Amino acid sequence: MASPSQLAASFDVVLVSPRNPLNIGAAARAMANFGLTRLSVVTPFAEGWREARSAVGAPEVLQNAKSAERLAEAVADCTLVVGTGSLEYRKPEQPLVVLPQLAPLVSQELNRGGRVALVFGPENHGLSREELSLCHAMAVIPTDDRQPSMNLGQAVAVCLYELAGRGVDSGPAIPGLPGAASASLELLAGIIEETMEAARYSPEGMREANRHDLRLLLRKLGLREREVRRILGLFRRILWALRRGAPSK
Amino acid sequence: MASPSQLAASFDVVLVSPRNPLNIGAAARAMANFGLTRLSVVTPFAEGWREARSAVGAPEVLQNAKSAERLAEAVADCTLVVGTGSLEYRKPEQPLVVLPQLAPLVSQELNRGGRVALVFGPENHGLSREELSLCHAMAVIPTDDRQPSMNLGQAVAVCLYELAGRGVDSGPAIPGLPGAASASLELLAGIIEETMEAARYSPEGMREANRHDLRLLLRKLGLREREVRRILGLFRRILWALRRGAPSK
Repeated sequence: MASPSQLAASFDVVLVSPRNPLNIGAAARAMANFGLTRLSVVTPFAEGWREARSAVGAPEVLQNAKSAERLAEAVADCTLVVGTGSLEYRKPEQPLVVLPQLAPLVSQELNRGGRVALVFGPENHGLSREELSLCHAMAVIPTDDRQPSMNLGQAVAVCLYELAGRGVDSGPAIPGLPGAASASLELLAGIIEETMEAARYSPEGMREANRHDLRLLLRKLGLREREVRRILGLFRRILWALRRGAPSK
Repeated sequence: MASPSQLAASFDVVLVSPRNPLNIGAAARAMANFGLTRLSVVTPFAEGWREARSAVGAPEVLQNAKSAERLAEAVADCTLVVGTGSLEYRKPEQPLVVLPQLAPLVSQELNRGGRVALVFGPENHGLSREELSLCHAMAVIPTDDRQPSMNLGQAVAVCLYELAGRGVDSGPAIPGLPGAASASLELLAGIIEETMEAARYSPEGMREANRHDLRLLLRKLGLREREVRRILGLFRRILWALRRGAPSK
């Protein structure tokens, strides 16, 4: 089990494009209920965001919230990014984790010194495929098939209860290093893409799909920061060689 | 773990004097999310109740909700009544159960053929001392000391997730009989009280306090229906004798 201070310092809640000020307020209140402090909001609907922050008694967590233009920016320094959602609309490409099984993963990452983000999509349609491609895993709350989709504020409360409130020991910490930060993976993905282009690997029409698959793959590998730096070095060298126009054979 | 069909058939959610239609709607939605169907509302604020039921997309559970004048009526046929709340305002007189430990108790009672009610108080001040005296136990969601009090809709979602959604096995069922129904305990309390009066046990000023303590005691004993009937028989006999004016010696 991660300690309250670890959670307060290294666990981010990220809301992507929330619309309803009441939901934003409810998410912030649930964070305060379970001792969490770090909230990020990605491109919120301006009016709802203003209203939520100016509400009477808005929790401090809302006043201190950071806002970002893109999800990649909000989770840049996170080493484990977990999306949330129901399975109603899509079959996720990420490993699926049922919520009760998420706590040990989060504890493990925090104990290794990593930083974790839990990401919630907009009220109407959840996280997009592209947003999910920035996630290492997708957490699902076990709900009834006839009404699987939860209200945003309630979903946040349930997840934070499981991760920060329940307080049940999740077994011994597994030693090791934290994963690489999201920003490092994005940097690596960018260099590999450039290399693909330089090597004319990707036909124009396939670039989008290849970029998507690459993101998924990089997150599946569980790379550590040092490994990312090594691979980065390799691809930088390849790219340099390709651009220099060295004969490939 | 109680089965979904046991929970749907024998688990009641009871809201006492809810005020905000959004909270009532949120509670009903969380019930639908976790496959529950039986909602009772005790003296709701009329306007909010009307508004909640007439909201667009109000879940079926709200349409089928029962309403009652008093909590005792709403839980009359329940054999395990669990109040909810934070420890902010009062030190409860009931046994305290932290939410993660509640699931096995609920499963056990349902497996014995009992009926369980989970009771939520009004938004502003929670369940009263008198309402709690109808509860066998009080469940507490582990929250941060600086912000212990949860929003009603979120508290319902968290409790139902733990009891009906989490789906983690809570060990083998403990055989036995279900507890006595609340209505039987109330009947017994009434007869004992009459007996106290007939025997001039309770001075006028102590009656209220004695009634309260009696309720607490009866729920602590874990009486089964058959035992209640026996004790009822005994007190009826005593009462009859007292009233007949038989010499007490």
